[in-house]
Amino acid sequence: MKSNIGVIGSGVMGLAISKNLAKKNFSVSLYDNDEKKLNEINNTNELIKIFKNINNYIESLEKPRKILLMVPAGDPVKECIKTLSEKLNEGDIIIDGGNSFYKDTEKNFKKLKSKKINFLGIGISGGEKGALEGPCIMCGGDEKVYKQVEEILKKISAQHENESCCAYAGNNSAGHFVKMIHNGIEYADMQIIAEVYIFLKNNLSKTNKEISEIFKNWGETPLKSYLLEITSKILLEKENDNSIIDLIEDIASNKGTGLWTSIESHKMQTNASVITASFDARVISNEIENRKKIKKNSEKISSNLSIEEIFDAYYLSKIVIYTQGFSMMQKANELYDYKINLKKISSIFRSGCIIQCKLLDLIMESFEKNNENLLISERFSKILKTNEQSLRNLVIELIKCKTPAPAFTNSLTYIDQLQAEELGANIIQGQRDFFGAHTFKRIDKKGDFHYEWEKN
Amino acid sequence: MKSNIGVIGSGVMGLAISKNLAKKNFSVSLYDNDEKKLNEINNTNELIKIFKNINNYIESLEKPRKILLMVPAGDPVKECIKTLSEKLNEGDIIIDGGNSFYKDTEKNFKKLKSKKINFLGIGISGGEKGALEGPCIMCGGDEKVYKQVEEILKKISAQHENESCCAYAGNNSAGHFVKMIHNGIEYADMQIIAEVYIFLKNNLSKTNKEISEIFKNWGETPLKSYLLEITSKILLEKENDNSIIDLIEDIASNKGTGLWTSIESHKMQTNASVITASFDARVISNEIENRKKIKKNSEKISSNLSIEEIFDAYYLSKIVIYTQGFSMMQKANELYDYKINLKKISSIFRSGCIIQCKLLDLIMESFEKNNENLLISERFSKILKTNEQSLRNLVIELIKCKTPAPAFTNSLTYIDQLQAEELGANIIQGQRDFFGAHTFKRIDKKGDFHYEWEKN
Repeated sequence: MKSNIGVIGSGVMGLAISKNLAKKNFSVSLYDNDEKKLNEINNTNELIKIFKNINNYIESLEKPRKILLMVPAGDPVKECIKTLSEKLNEGDIIIDGGNSFYKDTEKNFKKLKSKKINFLGIGISGGEKGALEGPCIMCGGDEKVYKQVEEILKKISAQHENESCCAYAGNNSAGHFVKMIHNGIEYADMQIIAEVYIFLKNNLSKTNKEISEIFKNWGETPLKSYLLEITSKILLEKENDNSIIDLIEDIASNKGTGLWTSIESHKMQTNASVITASFDARVISNEIENRKKIKKNSEKISSNLSIEEIFDAYYLSKIVIYTQGFSMMQKANELYDYKINLKKISSIFRSGCIIQCKLLDLIMESFEKNNENLLISERFSKILKTNEQSLRNLVIELIKCKTPAPAFTNSLTYIDQLQAEELGANIIQGQRDFFGAHTFKRIDKKGDFHYEWEKN
Repeated sequence: MKSNIGVIGSGVMGLAISKNLAKKNFSVSLYDNDEKKLNEINNTNELIKIFKNINNYIESLEKPRKILLMVPAGDPVKECIKTLSEKLNEGDIIIDGGNSFYKDTEKNFKKLKSKKINFLGIGISGGEKGALEGPCIMCGGDEKVYKQVEEILKKISAQHENESCCAYAGNNSAGHFVKMIHNGIEYADMQIIAEVYIFLKNNLSKTNKEISEIFKNWGETPLKSYLLEITSKILLEKENDNSIIDLIEDIASNKGTGLWTSIESHKMQTNASVITASFDARVISNEIENRKKIKKNSEKISSNLSIEEIFDAYYLSKIVIYTQGFSMMQKANELYDYKINLKKISSIFRSGCIIQCKLLDLIMESFEKNNENLLISERFSKILKTNEQSLRNLVIELIKCKTPAPAFTNSLTYIDQLQAEELGANIIQGQRDFFGAHTFKRIDKKGDFHYEWEKN
């Protein structure tokens, strides 16, 4: 009997996905070029067959062969594709399930197209637990090819109210692009929760238990989210008499996935300031020497802002984060012709992935009507109106308390930039024309104008 | 008689540099592969010889040949280098004076090294006027090669108090790297001036003439700068009865140079949040449809903040901008072994370039003592202390007035991040460990730790 699907990569994610597939009654062939890793697997599952020889592995798969790569992004994916492209037949399907950079995926599409081997680039979110129990899957490539693996992917993915959190994301590298946006939103939401935490702790004198309780309560509102839920749990964990959270260093790492979102927002010329500020916040936390040497604001200034007002501010900031993330998808549709269905993506984000949250129900609803900037939609323009003052009050309070809050602050700036009658960009255009003759446009005439600023 | 130097590229900058060279009594051979452009030149200068044939051009130069490329960055530079590398001899020197991306310059160094042709990548700032009358020149490459052209470059560069604003910037692509930092600082200073303008105009009801006067007065303080000076002039210019500035569209363009600074700050993992926010501010000014559709904050809220307080805030923000820019050079010294001399760079920025300003005297002084983050230095930590409250007051006032000010706001956040006892990064590490087993460091033990968050 040939296997239904092949998996390459026996790391944490590859194994978890294989088990998930077997659980859904798919027979799996598993291969890894690292024999040692394969030897360490204690496989008792009859539906999973392990192969040390690539040719036998490929022979073991039913045709057209479907091979899911669960190897690290970058060179390992490249290597796999090179090897497979020499061994597979026309019509076989390679699926890159790694966290690949979408521009690499684009290149892989090109390479395999010339060999007539089908390719899909899929974003899988949810970590090991998601991979095992049901991740969120964003699938990019030719829709006809997707249809050939849809049943498998839908069965192993997370379910939200009986809908599968797996969807066709769009053409070409759209799957990995959407995954990148997911990661950027994740960075920003994590940062904003950290900002609420530090404000509650230092300026409202809340204990870890109280903060945990607040986040738990917020989990019973439209802001319910996986990240709030786990943060509430994290704050309760203790080692002896100490909260674990108090023992963790105040220095945030990153594996570069939020870096991509930030860089691409700049290259695509869309404003994702909150995502960028969240990445930068992690970076500056690592400037340990400078943080030690620069004079400390060690006084703790108290604030009596209400929890309700903080909640309203968080609500609006969270909308801004999603607005910025989805704006990048809108721009990508223009630039790359992905045809990403924003409503569909909002719907699959609702389960299996790190950014899953109730707010996505409302976001879906908005994209049902149209695909504009979320702050224009009926529902969110209303929340903008009702919650704006709370966000403004919170940011002023944070500044008075000297509590740095780049995500909240940049959320408010973004709103003010879109709402302002004037930004002062005319000054910049004037300066550019003065020193570089870069010309400017006028409000009263069409065309590009240069002015002789120093004629006198 | 052979020419002292060759210039390739007869655009605005190439012509201006050629004239500048001739003014200093260097004989110049000028070549362009676009004959049409050469035909349009009305050359009456005996020291400038125009060549339409590349071989004759190369023959016209004294040995070792020195050829200054003044062609657009990217492919044109690449093409030129390819052509020249086949025609020049060992020991000849190609100098890329364009606005090349430093990573391209790195590649060009490699290519030419294998052919034993010398190469320098130099940043030239000052626009057409600077090129003609004396630009600021930052020169990267082998110092011995630099010495061979130093006399020429020093003579054509700007002079500041009898010191030439041309210097050896460091190894390899350091010249173009430093130019990129210059451009990032330029973006941020322009943005911050635009923010002062819009606040003075909309919230302090100042006329263009009054704002011009304020900027002129600031030009007689330690904040004296070229950008303030030209902005003051721009605000006075009129067409019939209208200020030109009021006729310019509120939409800022960019040619991508600030984009590089922002992207590289992220890749190098240094925080250049104000430079990034300034780039993002230009981007969002282009979101014309969204700006139209999202509800307007058309009310103009008055503020009675004093001009002195705004000045003090601007002073501190300006220090932050330079701190972030120079931090990138410090990091580049670690990453790329450039050996950039920060004091020297501050000194040559004082004339010829767009960011020239008096503050650089103080920055030089700080780097005389050590190369740390500027906010640690004796002088600037003092200004941080005295001006911090003004910056805080200004940002609060801007937020109350709903006047978006990303550069001011992110300056304050940067200061608060470096001064804060705690950033809340422990929450982010806890979350990462919870959902991805990414591990964390502890304050009480060495090592990487994972916690079983869901053991219960």
